[in-house]
Amino acid sequence: MSKKTNMEMTTKGKDLAKNVVSILLKKKLKITIAESCTGGLLSNMITNIPGSSKCFDYGLVTYSNKSKINLLNIKTKTLLIHGAVSRQTVLAMAGNLRNISNSDMSIAISGIAGPSGGTSGKPVGTVFIGLSTVKKTTAKKYIFSGDRESIKLQTCLVALDKIKNELII
Amino acid sequence: MSKKTNMEMTTKGKDLAKNVVSILLKKKLKITIAESCTGGLLSNMITNIPGSSKCFDYGLVTYSNKSKINLLNIKTKTLLIHGAVSRQTVLAMAGNLRNISNSDMSIAISGIAGPSGGTSGKPVGTVFIGLSTVKKTTAKKYIFSGDRESIKLQTCLVALDKIKNELII
Repeated sequence: MSKKTNMEMTTKGKDLAKNVVSILLKKKLKITIAESCTGGLLSNMITNIPGSSKCFDYGLVTYSNKSKINLLNIKTKTLLIHGAVSRQTVLAMAGNLRNISNSDMSIAISGIAGPSGGTSGKPVGTVFIGLSTVKKTTAKKYIFSGDRESIKLQTCLVALDKIKNELII
Repeated sequence: MSKKTNMEMTTKGKDLAKNVVSILLKKKLKITIAESCTGGLLSNMITNIPGSSKCFDYGLVTYSNKSKINLLNIKTKTLLIHGAVSRQTVLAMAGNLRNISNSDMSIAISGIAGPSGGTSGKPVGTVFIGLSTVKKTTAKKYIFSGDRESIKLQTCLVALDKIKNELII
């Protein structure tokens, strides 16, 4: 598969976000979002869709560790042992956000968008995405490549796809 | 002045965000953001700049009234009397966010990005932007025109310009 340009991904993201908002509205469900490395892009993509105010309660762009602790009740121990970019942290981000917000679905993202911040164990492009519903809270690891904006976009496309797939079960 | 396309504004926004992040880093200042109608776009523009994690603490996309109350301590009375899109609400959003986050500068945005939601008194494109620093908290009203994404972009360009001007005083 040839690598998509940022513009192609933006267009694809608009279609996906439209689809997600449409299903959320139809099912009368509310979503909340906690983003770290995507820095507000996912919330922005969803709020670009007219009518999203009826299904999008709020988003948190918890960029600093301090904000992950204060706004999402992430344990300092979890951040110290596993790091901000880890399965454990996004599981807690997604699960805690759904409890705090009392929303039907919460999505959480933490990763390394680069160009710096990568390590041998967690290179630039490493991203964890967590999803929490009434039934379950899960998280998955992804490795993307490309520049900072491309990694943010690829992450949001996968996140939107995850939300859509969960909604149409 | 001819109306700029969304792509031209995105390019201009990137330059402005780069500039703002560069000054914040140089002055070792931390910023927090509370967005309603821009839905995460301002946080996204800032976090597109490498190094922004050192000056951007967190952003809140308080889309619902409930989230403005719960996350930013906006009084229900303020929302009932003046509305979410008002000088009073963004003043409280900016001021409260700075107090809660203990950041050097907080910016707050509330408006009507459309296509629906406008009234005769507050047509689509009405936006209030608030800015809070240790010295003062101010807010200003703007009326933009164009589609939803254009209004979000125009708002963020003005917000970035406001931050920049405040930083270079």
